[in-house]
Amino acid sequence: MKSFEIRDFGIENLTLVDCDVPRPGPREVLVRITAASLNYRDYKVVTGTYNPKLRRPMVPLSDCAGIVEVLGPGVIRFKAGDHVTACFMQKWIDGPPTREKSNSALGGAVDGIAREYAVFDEEGLVPMANGLSDEEAAALPCAAVTAWHALFEHTPAAPGDTVLIQGTGGVSTFALLFARAAGLRVILTSSSDEKIAHARELGADETINCRQIPDWEKQARKLTDGLGVDHVIEVGGSDTLPKSLAAVRMGGAVSVIGVLSGNASTVSPVSILMNSVRVQGIYVGSRVMFERMNRAIEFHRIKPVIDKVFPWTELPDALRYLESQAHFGKICLRF
Amino acid sequence: MKSFEIRDFGIENLTLVDCDVPRPGPREVLVRITAASLNYRDYKVVTGTYNPKLRRPMVPLSDCAGIVEVLGPGVIRFKAGDHVTACFMQKWIDGPPTREKSNSALGGAVDGIAREYAVFDEEGLVPMANGLSDEEAAALPCAAVTAWHALFEHTPAAPGDTVLIQGTGGVSTFALLFARAAGLRVILTSSSDEKIAHARELGADETINCRQIPDWEKQARKLTDGLGVDHVIEVGGSDTLPKSLAAVRMGGAVSVIGVLSGNASTVSPVSILMNSVRVQGIYVGSRVMFERMNRAIEFHRIKPVIDKVFPWTELPDALRYLESQAHFGKICLRF
Amino acid sequence: MKSFEIRDFGIENLTLVDCDVPRPGPREVLVRITAASLNYRDYKVVTGTYNPKLRRPMVPLSDCAGIVEVLGPGVIRFKAGDHVTACFMQKWIDGPPTREKSNSALGGAVDGIAREYAVFDEEGLVPMANGLSDEEAAALPCAAVTAWHALFEHTPAAPGDTVLIQGTGGVSTFALLFARAAGLRVILTSSSDEKIAHARELGADETINCRQIPDWEKQARKLTDGLGVDHVIEVGGSDTLPKSLAAVRMGGAVSVIGVLSGNASTVSPVSILMNSVRVQGIYVGSRVMFERMNRAIEFHRIKPVIDKVFPWTELPDALRYLESQAHFGKICLRF
Amino acid sequence: MKSFEIRDFGIENLTLVDCDVPRPGPREVLVRITAASLNYRDYKVVTGTYNPKLRRPMVPLSDCAGIVEVLGPGVIRFKAGDHVTACFMQKWIDGPPTREKSNSALGGAVDGIAREYAVFDEEGLVPMANGLSDEEAAALPCAAVTAWHALFEHTPAAPGDTVLIQGTGGVSTFALLFARAAGLRVILTSSSDEKIAHARELGADETINCRQIPDWEKQARKLTDGLGVDHVIEVGGSDTLPKSLAAVRMGGAVSVIGVLSGNASTVSPVSILMNSVRVQGIYVGSRVMFERMNRAIEFHRIKPVIDKVFPWTELPDALRYLESQAHFGKICLRF
Repeated sequence: MKSFEIRDFGIENLTLVDCDVPRPGPREVLVRITAASLNYRDYKVVTGTYNPKLRRPMVPLSDCAGIVEVLGPGVIRFKAGDHVTACFMQKWIDGPPTREKSNSALGGAVDGIAREYAVFDEEGLVPMANGLSDEEAAALPCAAVTAWHALFEHTPAAPGDTVLIQGTGGVSTFALLFARAAGLRVILTSSSDEKIAHARELGADETINCRQIPDWEKQARKLTDGLGVDHVIEVGGSDTLPKSLAAVRMGGAVSVIGVLSGNASTVSPVSILMNSVRVQGIYVGSRVMFERMNRAIEFHRIKPVIDKVFPWTELPDALRYLESQAHFGKICLRF
Repeated sequence: MKSFEIRDFGIENLTLVDCDVPRPGPREVLVRITAASLNYRDYKVVTGTYNPKLRRPMVPLSDCAGIVEVLGPGVIRFKAGDHVTACFMQKWIDGPPTREKSNSALGGAVDGIAREYAVFDEEGLVPMANGLSDEEAAALPCAAVTAWHALFEHTPAAPGDTVLIQGTGGVSTFALLFARAAGLRVILTSSSDEKIAHARELGADETINCRQIPDWEKQARKLTDGLGVDHVIEVGGSDTLPKSLAAVRMGGAVSVIGVLSGNASTVSPVSILMNSVRVQGIYVGSRVMFERMNRAIEFHRIKPVIDKVFPWTELPDALRYLESQAHFGKICLRF
Repeated sequence: MKSFEIRDFGIENLTLVDCDVPRPGPREVLVRITAASLNYRDYKVVTGTYNPKLRRPMVPLSDCAGIVEVLGPGVIRFKAGDHVTACFMQKWIDGPPTREKSNSALGGAVDGIAREYAVFDEEGLVPMANGLSDEEAAALPCAAVTAWHALFEHTPAAPGDTVLIQGTGGVSTFALLFARAAGLRVILTSSSDEKIAHARELGADETINCRQIPDWEKQARKLTDGLGVDHVIEVGGSDTLPKSLAAVRMGGAVSVIGVLSGNASTVSPVSILMNSVRVQGIYVGSRVMFERMNRAIEFHRIKPVIDKVFPWTELPDALRYLESQAHFGKICLRF
Repeated sequence: MKSFEIRDFGIENLTLVDCDVPRPGPREVLVRITAASLNYRDYKVVTGTYNPKLRRPMVPLSDCAGIVEVLGPGVIRFKAGDHVTACFMQKWIDGPPTREKSNSALGGAVDGIAREYAVFDEEGLVPMANGLSDEEAAALPCAAVTAWHALFEHTPAAPGDTVLIQGTGGVSTFALLFARAAGLRVILTSSSDEKIAHARELGADETINCRQIPDWEKQARKLTDGLGVDHVIEVGGSDTLPKSLAAVRMGGAVSVIGVLSGNASTVSPVSILMNSVRVQGIYVGSRVMFERMNRAIEFHRIKPVIDKVFPWTELPDALRYLESQAHFGKICLRF
């Protein structure tokens, strides 16, 4: 079988190697990978900006779908032929996050899925949601679970609540789809009129071109009678966190998710304090959240937004396309 | 002005009397009532089954809409001409319930609104939701706030969660509308095929005719892969509570709301214990819940389901119609 | 090795048999049992009143402490010689309860621990809390975790809150100890002045002899300025639930735990509804709760209250002693 | 009567003026102030660093105790002679914070209590806790309610949980007392060995001299088996927030309270994200929290730590003493 390896950092250094198909141990299954998707984290991992001390060689990528081919001894959750999606953190089944759980993240803490076959603990997989293609299912483990976690697992949401979503990347696009399904009012920011038009089609209620209106936080307050939004899905990081704190209402919530624009941010604790804001770090989510999300995807027939599908051996090109930030939604690989 | 009074219990004893238009004191407003709606509680109050020791004479009814006509000294929340809806509990502004708050319920603890004019503390009113007629707005204070409270203020709801709603009375009809707006999956029970057809039109995903299928709790489990529903909106009382406990999933919630079928129920604590169920009493809700609900009604353009509108002086006929349980949704009065 | 088996229901039918020492499979460990404790559930299981369809023969009892003797392949959480306590539900690690988790309860759904050796999944054990004897550690899995779960995992508790605890059995005694550690005010009911004196020594702030004062719910309201208590630890079942609902304050909580006095209760849904009470079924708890509880036990040097210790082969005598309800705290077995 | 006024910023510009005793309007009471206490906020208000645009002249200070002398029309909560404490935010009775509620803060948004008499809405007062002197009661409204809110109203606390408290100012000292009453394990930081010794006497379990050990966040992790603390009471602001984020466990909470060391902080969103931390802004609290806290103070006979009491006309000296940061606990004024 073929597998990608990070030996040295840099997209140009990704190496496609030959290796043996692994064998499942007790309570493990062998999965033939059929599709994968990219996250910004994968770009950072491959280029060495995620964790410079990353163990190498390492197999990159976290998100995949596939078919169960071989069962190890004692497996009870799956049978051969089952279509499955892998959990981002293999050991986060349920409950709140822990260090042990987060130390099981694919394509970072442990080897990822940019390879034709992989072995998983049967507890680390979920049945593929009905009605999705393999690429669509592979789009879910990191970005969709993160969006779901932020919207529904911490902050009580009710119809008519206002959520501000930044941009049109993977997490943001899923947040838009889920927020619409929940009857939330969506204010979406983007720097591109074309992407804004696309987001409108997907159901964004209000949109702000943040290139044309750099103080979008003031516009967000105007759109909420001066009160501020109930919830911000904060994916921008250092540039946007202070603006998010200015856009949210007193007692509202900011879910800190992605770190697109840098690692450090100058934040005023006063703005958190005087507005009684809750800033909640969200690092993907549990298998139970994944299953609850899949139920919603099936019920609402939600279709993940796939921007482009590459053959999996063209992973370097796919990462460069991700780097360009031209995409809307998810970039996928087909095996 | 005219006013209805309960002097002796019984619909036939309701008396229409003449009295003076009251004057608003400090921070109070005089409201001209334009519409009212009936709740099953009103029927029980008038017939003496709600509280046999009820102070009399008393003005019945709790739910109304109207127009602010005169401001008392120091009023800041309203101006003359504002369209308003009155809160069921005049002193439950915010936070959890207390005895003091529940002792301010209109048409029970204090005089109600079956009269042409009434004075309210300005804190006990909310601006009328945009897009509603006076009858539609008058349908909200008890039934809609109760349904909203049960669905969104205690039990975290996410799209695709399953909620079981009993019947098609006021609370149940609002619960159906709100659950649909929130992307929940609705299983609705009713004893009438005609009402079931109507509920389907309003968006019920699954329906059970509980006359034809008396063990509807088993049917509800079948419709949820044997797991049980996430949440039951329990309006039936003594007859239905044991069935609701059998229909809900382990760790799920039963919101106890109405008591249509009697006051005592034989419940097995074992079924609560072994299924880790949460049984939550819901007694209407706060002004802050009302306001959040109105925001959702405006955003989703939700239209309360009005069954029939009577002239307000025909209150006795309206109560007899309520008694017949022929209605679907709310029975209203026009002034 | 020796093991007790239920072949026919009835204490007199418990059989001590010889069997082979089991071998641990992958990720499993063999534990030599050193101590056990009894719960009322064990009495019901053995006498056939818990579940008349119980699979037989079955090994009874759920609660034990022991020493890890042999490791199966792949074990990482323990080493030989570690002192451990077994979780009541072997598969409830974290998060909310599920059917799958509750179907792993020792001495009911699966074979229990009334035997010299038992094999456990390594995930189903916790390290023994420092400072406890084996009997004290064996007292914890069912009764203490239940009390902890009820007091701290559902209902936010703050110092000075009032909790009403019924009786002086296992769960109630732990609830008393934990409530004291959390600075809660404890009102305890018991039918024995001697037990009341003992409970006072352990820190009960207020006590009510419910034989002398059968309407103890009124006394509880008096002790709380007429408002009612914040939280009731309801262990009595059918006889006491209506009284508990009358003793709790508006918006308060009743944790339904044990079913000492029968299976069915005549409850008024009106009392739940009009008081906005939350009735929460509590069925033991997760491993994560157990670990958090052990941390508190170590920090506060809490000593479980052991009434009496029997040699483990005298299990029938121990069960008859439990039946007599003469005990205060836990009845244990030494191996 | 006499009253202090801020006419120009600066302690030296505080002016003691003569004015008329105000008269209570409807639902208002006249209170004779008997004691007050200082908060760091008062220092910032008087020196103009809190809000440079502050309306002037303005009466400073927020925290007081006193005696009800005259009742306005319609008052039902108090009678003449009642000992009372004023709420920091006069309109935050219950529920979550809002802009309207925070716009009623004494000694900032509205005139404060550095005067012999003041009129309050009856809803803005609480009965004085039994067992406290007037100075002790006056120590509570801002600092104690803030500490209570942070510890018990957002983050579920259970005995044995670890809370890290920074310093020995007003909020921190109350947090120490309340955390001890709740059975929490307290790690306290201070730059003074003398203050550390005092904190130990009050019950701090672990202490770190943050002058000697500048990377106290690492020491805090060591004291928690490398996991990090459950909850940080963050009073330092820009200097300490990054360290607090490094001291807290995955999934833990940081309550952002005071801003002693500046207004802006360089925070890494990554540390919030990857550790799933919740950062919660806490701006004092509601009257309902105050009442629940008073119940705990009475039950546990908690004594506020008073550092020094000045005659109220020596307010400028008291503020300079506060500026010196030599105090431990609260600085009070006697009228």
